[in-house]
Amino acid sequence: MQNFVFENPTKIIFGRDQIKKTGRAVAKFGKKVLMVYGQGSIKSSGIYNQVVSSLKEAGLDIVEFPGVKSNPVLSCALKGIDVAKKEGVDVVLAVGGGSVMDTAKTIAVGAKTDDDVWDYFVHAKTIQDALPVLTVVTISASASEMNPAAVITREDGAKKYSIRSPFIQPKASILDPTALFTLSPAYSAYSAVDVIAHMLEPYFKNTEPNSLLQDRLVEGLMKTIMESTEMILKEPADYDARASMMWAAILAFNGITTAGMGMIGLPAHMVEHSLSAIYNIAHGAGLSIVLPGWMYYAVEKDPVKFARLGREIFGIEDNDNLKAGIEGINRLKGWFAAIGSPVSLGDANILEEDIEKIAENAYALAQIWGLRDYTEEVIVDVLKLCK
Amino acid sequence: MQNFVFENPTKIIFGRDQIKKTGRAVAKFGKKVLMVYGQGSIKSSGIYNQVVSSLKEAGLDIVEFPGVKSNPVLSCALKGIDVAKKEGVDVVLAVGGGSVMDTAKTIAVGAKTDDDVWDYFVHAKTIQDALPVLTVVTISASASEMNPAAVITREDGAKKYSIRSPFIQPKASILDPTALFTLSPAYSAYSAVDVIAHMLEPYFKNTEPNSLLQDRLVEGLMKTIMESTEMILKEPADYDARASMMWAAILAFNGITTAGMGMIGLPAHMVEHSLSAIYNIAHGAGLSIVLPGWMYYAVEKDPVKFARLGREIFGIEDNDNLKAGIEGINRLKGWFAAIGSPVSLGDANILEEDIEKIAENAYALAQIWGLRDYTEEVIVDVLKLCK
Repeated sequence: MQNFVFENPTKIIFGRDQIKKTGRAVAKFGKKVLMVYGQGSIKSSGIYNQVVSSLKEAGLDIVEFPGVKSNPVLSCALKGIDVAKKEGVDVVLAVGGGSVMDTAKTIAVGAKTDDDVWDYFVHAKTIQDALPVLTVVTISASASEMNPAAVITREDGAKKYSIRSPFIQPKASILDPTALFTLSPAYSAYSAVDVIAHMLEPYFKNTEPNSLLQDRLVEGLMKTIMESTEMILKEPADYDARASMMWAAILAFNGITTAGMGMIGLPAHMVEHSLSAIYNIAHGAGLSIVLPGWMYYAVEKDPVKFARLGREIFGIEDNDNLKAGIEGINRLKGWFAAIGSPVSLGDANILEEDIEKIAENAYALAQIWGLRDYTEEVIVDVLKLCK
Repeated sequence: MQNFVFENPTKIIFGRDQIKKTGRAVAKFGKKVLMVYGQGSIKSSGIYNQVVSSLKEAGLDIVEFPGVKSNPVLSCALKGIDVAKKEGVDVVLAVGGGSVMDTAKTIAVGAKTDDDVWDYFVHAKTIQDALPVLTVVTISASASEMNPAAVITREDGAKKYSIRSPFIQPKASILDPTALFTLSPAYSAYSAVDVIAHMLEPYFKNTEPNSLLQDRLVEGLMKTIMESTEMILKEPADYDARASMMWAAILAFNGITTAGMGMIGLPAHMVEHSLSAIYNIAHGAGLSIVLPGWMYYAVEKDPVKFARLGREIFGIEDNDNLKAGIEGINRLKGWFAAIGSPVSLGDANILEEDIEKIAENAYALAQIWGLRDYTEEVIVDVLKLCK
């Protein structure tokens, strides 16, 4: 096991009827709150009213910032920063999924500086401060509600980059599984893909023979996520399945499963960021295309962990590591297809002739993320396996 | 899954050579530190020198409070409180295992109040404040380094009771697995028993059919702990095995595996507290006697989860739940014996005629902990199965 520092102070307030605690949680950090949300689904589901009532009951002044879209863009966050500065808000509350949370985090950073916030995304500067951020979660996938990261797309150049800082770790997150009851089957499936990818990319990187602790945590969470997703697709209002998914999504990417595993590379995420930056495909949908392709690429280098996954998750009995590994990938890809997520570039109407353009875009991020093995040629090879 | 609040802000600084970061971590909380430790093993192992050097380098004034014994007693903590008050320390640093950490936490509470600290242990009053606590861990078992609890024995009446408060959650804990290299085989085994008990008592309580998430986390951790302990007993300086044990011990009892499972009862811990309060037996040694006895008692009420444990951990194939459950307990008890921990009252020279006295003592704690099903008669029944 490698040396690590683990610190995750976010308070998780989890369960039925917990949204009514939002106001009291936010009020600890100020009087005036910027409420960031998306496209109106929180209005039709009733969550908007629950949140606003709770904030008002706690005596907070609310400044609304609606309209955040999936694959959130820099221009939207910049508008939010202007609003936050002009209104002098004390605290930022995200009500939504990863896109809303990440936009809220970016606003929280920008509100406390005169720097160009994009400098933080290209690692030109380090974040020095941010407004306190809290979240009410309506899509469980990114784990942004309990981690210090945010992803934003800059429209010119289609750059989907990320920031990481303890300043944007949410102070508290309110998770009510009933808020997921109205999430569509498609997005329920994409969420599962995203959560699985968060764990598998570090899992395959972890080839130390004595790191079974982390492997077993990942395998236990992965089984739970697959099982819960199947239950959710049958019955979207299955409370226990939504609750398991909601908590598993956090544990999958809040540092617990990767502590001791060294620097974590996310090569499939890196390639997918180009897909969703260029084509505006849902992140999870992009991952179900890229992750199996990347796995077919990586299994040839060292099949041992791929074979372990095939045996532990899918009960594959083949003693040959390469064969068991490949069969495991086939099964995972088949499961992604079965839950309704695309599994090839063609499924998402992405042309094979675009592969070089995608690779060029992805390579720029590979350099920022320090994924040194991923040249443009390698990324092209990975993308050619996404079919 | 039941509603829960999860918040665990302790910073974990983990790995080789991390003890040198102690001074900087402590200095964030003041200038004068009370350094609490035990019987001198940290001097022979060299950890004392490493800690003191780091504290001095950070410019801290050190007040030493040595001499904490296993099964720490209230009178010792009271002396520590006097020292902390007289010296006006700003922060408390525990260097040791659970006994030292729990004494340090009790001192931290007492230093900030004129109340009788025992009032907090009998739940007569609620903790309102404490000095900041940090830890350097030399025995991994209690998870006190990343949880808000402490256990102390009051000598008159032999009462081994506990406190729980966010004020005694350590601010930071420094974990260097090499600090465990000199831990004896006996205490390495007792540690494993304690960690397993922390997880299994809530595991058996968790009979919701859709809480597989928590079950799988427990099973993955338990396999890791058993495997690591076997490696440690063969080679006490096996870094990866000590590291796995060190991190697993924390994850087993820092709230992760029990979130969503409702109020957690610890009936085997409750009975064991009487053994170690009356006989001064090591806590883990007491647990390897009581836990199987309690399991034989509980399996008869509802064997389903016991059968699951038998199948998942020991590969038992019997389809009859009661038989698979009992065979699982037999195997666990056999494993406790194989690693060198006592598995019957007789092994610890505790006479059968003392059972009623033990039960009377345990019943007092059952009432404080709200374990309503545990009358003196029930506790006698459990103890009679500890053979």
